[in-house]
Amino acid sequence: MTASSSAPERARVKLKPKANARALRHGFPWVYANELVTDRRTRKLAPGTLAVLEDEAMTPLGLVAMNPESKIIARILDRDPAAVIDTDWFATRLRRALELREQLYDAPFYRLVHAESDGLAGVVIDRFGDACVVQPNAAWAESHLEALTEALAAVTGVTTILKNATGRARGLEGLDDQNATLLGLAPEAPIAVGMNGATYMADLTGGQKTGLFYDQRENHGFAARLVKPGAKVLDVFSHVGGFGLAMLAAGASEATCVDGSAPALDLAAQGAAAGGMADRFVARQGDAFEELTKLGEEGAQFDVVICDPPAFAPSKPALEAGLRAYERVAKLAAPLVAPGGYLGLCSCSHAADLSKFRNASARGIGRGGRRGQLLHTGYAGPDHPQLPQLAESGYLKAVFFRLD
Amino acid sequence: MTASSSAPERARVKLKPKANARALRHGFPWVYANELVTDRRTRKLAPGTLAVLEDEAMTPLGLVAMNPESKIIARILDRDPAAVIDTDWFATRLRRALELREQLYDAPFYRLVHAESDGLAGVVIDRFGDACVVQPNAAWAESHLEALTEALAAVTGVTTILKNATGRARGLEGLDDQNATLLGLAPEAPIAVGMNGATYMADLTGGQKTGLFYDQRENHGFAARLVKPGAKVLDVFSHVGGFGLAMLAAGASEATCVDGSAPALDLAAQGAAAGGMADRFVARQGDAFEELTKLGEEGAQFDVVICDPPAFAPSKPALEAGLRAYERVAKLAAPLVAPGGYLGLCSCSHAADLSKFRNASARGIGRGGRRGQLLHTGYAGPDHPQLPQLAESGYLKAVFFRLD
Repeated sequence: MTASSSAPERARVKLKPKANARALRHGFPWVYANELVTDRRTRKLAPGTLAVLEDEAMTPLGLVAMNPESKIIARILDRDPAAVIDTDWFATRLRRALELREQLYDAPFYRLVHAESDGLAGVVIDRFGDACVVQPNAAWAESHLEALTEALAAVTGVTTILKNATGRARGLEGLDDQNATLLGLAPEAPIAVGMNGATYMADLTGGQKTGLFYDQRENHGFAARLVKPGAKVLDVFSHVGGFGLAMLAAGASEATCVDGSAPALDLAAQGAAAGGMADRFVARQGDAFEELTKLGEEGAQFDVVICDPPAFAPSKPALEAGLRAYERVAKLAAPLVAPGGYLGLCSCSHAADLSKFRNASARGIGRGGRRGQLLHTGYAGPDHPQLPQLAESGYLKAVFFRLD
Repeated sequence: MTASSSAPERARVKLKPKANARALRHGFPWVYANELVTDRRTRKLAPGTLAVLEDEAMTPLGLVAMNPESKIIARILDRDPAAVIDTDWFATRLRRALELREQLYDAPFYRLVHAESDGLAGVVIDRFGDACVVQPNAAWAESHLEALTEALAAVTGVTTILKNATGRARGLEGLDDQNATLLGLAPEAPIAVGMNGATYMADLTGGQKTGLFYDQRENHGFAARLVKPGAKVLDVFSHVGGFGLAMLAAGASEATCVDGSAPALDLAAQGAAAGGMADRFVARQGDAFEELTKLGEEGAQFDVVICDPPAFAPSKPALEAGLRAYERVAKLAAPLVAPGGYLGLCSCSHAADLSKFRNASARGIGRGGRRGQLLHTGYAGPDHPQLPQLAESGYLKAVFFRLD
């Protein structure tokens, strides 16, 4: 393969003999630091520098974005080492991403780009109708933000593009945490998003991450199937009411949402009001563990209880403590479930795989004095695709039990 | 606990000290042969004999059904060692099972009882409207079939109850393979079952297992979401058209169903006709591997391809060969997927866990010259609940890819 005339002169980086070049050729997107020859020149490359990756025989394998500071020292952007990262390049990838979402969803509200698995390493884009929120969590993306923005507007037709710079990976990439408006005007009010028959309010500028968690949509839908007319339901760690509002829309007579964040609960209340369900919505602000304990002391009972906590085990060192926390959630929540009712437990921890999380949950249910059937295991929705090579690390799991 | 006056004198069997009595107390339903004291008396118990299980301190743990021939020597039926297995006992369990299915489904077509996880070890019951098909795959159930039948009719109101005796476990339990009509009259024609907008024809007396596979319902639904209007789709190992008819109902312009069984394909064709989709239905009878190869040679392309083969790895010794077979299916199927199209691969093998099956599938896709994103992982539907303690062995997995 020869470099195209418009491609700039690029650094070349070389795999060690022990590196798994075969996996890279078959689509694995990352080069670990111990797989790359890291001489002084390589170590000095600024995060985000584009380079040509070569195997030990100096055969080019593709174009990579470097970060000598990171354990993942290089991420493959294109199998063509001469690829030019311009508006057209982004547009091709965005069209492919958009085609999938348009197939899956009736309305333009979804995760449009899910990083590596959509061919844009470290880039997350959520779409809210005419607005997109971009998380450029990699230096290469930050330095190509203009081309990305231009392509995104052209491919989707959105009129507002916001940059969210709160991603934790940005620090490692040498990037700041300054949010910005890349196109149009930042919306002054939350945007209404319809999912599973409910209306959610997404705050694109002040909320967590990109304003709404689309990844739980399918699991919200499953929880809604468990609601019989008149059911009382509880949504712990509710954020903007993900599970609670979906269950209200499914006919619950009362949904109690528990969260530590007053702004999140306020958005949940606004969503309930927008759906004409304000009279059935109850907010309890406070620490979830404390609120679960209090509800237990009150002898409260719900037909469906869902707990969707933050990542208790985001990394391997946090695994044991994280699993104990998941067990504790299950133990506190199980007694709140009415006989024959349902308990949904979620984990967004990379380090806790499904088996470990399910076992911790089942143990907690047992210690809470209950037994259950496992009805359903759900993951992030299909707008959060995975590379098969990285699927083991699928972060989001939801397990739904029916308790005796 | 004292024996109820109506309980017969029962054999007593005793756990060895090394047995996991704690797991049994917490809901694990099986006692393995090496965990039980097996003296001559115990070994002579006929399969299906009810006995009181005691721990090493002779504390009763519950009522078990024995099978000295099996690795699973005892299965717990009730935590009450004095429980009487009569019509009322079955009715309590059946009501609990029914309540779940009535919550989940709009129409009475589902798996009503999924063995251990519904509290009826070795018993499978599928419901088709006013008819139920019972698989009593354990000797204790066979000897209590009258009470079960009576309870089933009373709880559900069905007017027909058939016994299907083709389950492989029956031989081990010393049972014959004679089907029977337990209540009412066996239907003379296939029964129409609506799922995911399609009509399926279930042959309750001549078909495989209980006439229709309800376990794939959710996965059929996901496949249907991948169909754009006018899409051409392929359903390999189609049986009675599970995926193919759901995709036709979702708007496919043509569904080709491949299966080795002419009767199954005939039922698929009847289902297509019943749904007014006969003109878009194509049957190809033959060996699936040969048909996949031929389609490849013909250069055929489909927008969605689904392969739902029989269990290639039903047991551990068959695992390696089974995984190679799954890889081969993926390798042959991938080239038949149009660019940007979808490939769904299923496994109903206990021995191949999700990770192994997904890896074999991804390898096959790569060897078929394609790359893909993993969109969705599905399991058996919630009318096939699991005991959390046995969830590792969840047999059915479906992985859906989008191919470049």
